[in-house]
Amino acid sequence: MTATDLSTAPVPSFDDEDEGGRKLVLICSKGSLDMAYPGLVLANAALGEGIEVHIFFTFWGFEIINKKTMGDLKFVAMGNPATHMPNAVMGLPGMTAVATKMMRKQIAELDIPEGPEFLDIIHESGGHLWACRMSADMNKLTEDDLYEGVEGIISATDFMELSEGAQTIFI
Amino acid sequence: MTATDLSTAPVPSFDDEDEGGRKLVLICSKGSLDMAYPGLVLANAALGEGIEVHIFFTFWGFEIINKKTMGDLKFVAMGNPATHMPNAVMGLPGMTAVATKMMRKQIAELDIPEGPEFLDIIHESGGHLWACRMSADMNKLTEDDLYEGVEGIISATDFMELSEGAQTIFI
Amino acid sequence: MTATDLSTAPVPSFDDEDEGGRKLVLICSKGSLDMAYPGLVLANAALGEGIEVHIFFTFWGFEIINKKTMGDLKFVAMGNPATHMPNAVMGLPGMTAVATKMMRKQIAELDIPEGPEFLDIIHESGGHLWACRMSADMNKLTEDDLYEGVEGIISATDFMELSEGAQTIFI
Repeated sequence: MTATDLSTAPVPSFDDEDEGGRKLVLICSKGSLDMAYPGLVLANAALGEGIEVHIFFTFWGFEIINKKTMGDLKFVAMGNPATHMPNAVMGLPGMTAVATKMMRKQIAELDIPEGPEFLDIIHESGGHLWACRMSADMNKLTEDDLYEGVEGIISATDFMELSEGAQTIFI
Repeated sequence: MTATDLSTAPVPSFDDEDEGGRKLVLICSKGSLDMAYPGLVLANAALGEGIEVHIFFTFWGFEIINKKTMGDLKFVAMGNPATHMPNAVMGLPGMTAVATKMMRKQIAELDIPEGPEFLDIIHESGGHLWACRMSADMNKLTEDDLYEGVEGIISATDFMELSEGAQTIFI
Repeated sequence: MTATDLSTAPVPSFDDEDEGGRKLVLICSKGSLDMAYPGLVLANAALGEGIEVHIFFTFWGFEIINKKTMGDLKFVAMGNPATHMPNAVMGLPGMTAVATKMMRKQIAELDIPEGPEFLDIIHESGGHLWACRMSADMNKLTEDDLYEGVEGIISATDFMELSEGAQTIFI
């Protein structure tokens, strides 16, 4: 038995009308505030260029589409030397809240939408959002727990069909 | 002198019989339990779809193919806000063992094989496993230290030849 | 208003003389010593193979091209189980300095150049270096703050044009 057996749902069709055009598949596997944005920003830019866009949320990336967490992504500075703060300081209680607030402010100042609002923009612009079957099962989550714009929970095999001919970016 | 000089071994041939078909090259650069699985799951799914698959293990990804560590990958919750646990708690002695055990159980419940067994499946399904020359040299490791299914230790230049025409996913 | 509005600079032209050839676009989003090297090593190897190479520095990847930090990238072992050190030890004051020094020595022993010198080699070999507009704005940085070889600060939309037809690797 292999991991390809995980999906029991019917396989959705991934054919888009504009076949033959450029296609981008983003895999969002991280659940932190700082690593949520690269995927959303690239998806938005690609849609603006007329590129077919799919985002596949997997592992920690579920934070971005889980209704309970999507509005409250956090930034943890600890372990990230780019923050130039000693680990001893970053480990203090409350520091994640402070670091998150600072980053959220920086992002807002650039007129970049918040996570859920950003998902709305991508969804309304024709971007396709998919959730990973294995991650959903690991976390015992169903479609009801996820952002409404998510078109389906799909297996890794489905993902392979989805990403045929696409540029792939794993974040 | 540049990094392309690192390889002194003869360059292997990367020609597969089914040339012209779809090819996927996964780069596994992380050594934690949670970031080992995305590469293995995608490789397995791609093989099931008849895609030519190569995995290039580099940097911390060596943990997945190092005989000493491959059976005992760990999950560190600290610094990962998606775990929703305070850093102060996650930093306590023994917490990595607890978090690892929990994740391992979640994965086993989905009938997903353990790391080394998963490598066996991928290897037996025709997936190609490669180790990074620079990472091997940094860690003073030779082929004897690595999982038997690894076909060779190759340079970054070899990797470029290997990945020609492929979809690339860096994890 | 969407994130695609961020760029106000004129859009540079990304046409290279050798159009139709193989193209690689690396996205460097991490600022740590260990995750800076994969991008630089792959870029260098690709240039050696005659591949058109672009590196797009974004988010924490700015550390690699920021004049103030590029010569002093750090490695944080905390949170990385591949280091096989207890978090309690890795969190002690001074441990980041120790871990960084050890890794820097390992890299130097392989005759791999330091970060800034490595950028020089890539730049002189014809590799193209780009900085992300959104990240620059978040950090209030201008071209004067960045490594001289950086050709421009470009938007995510520019990045989409740049990466057309390329293999993409997000690090």
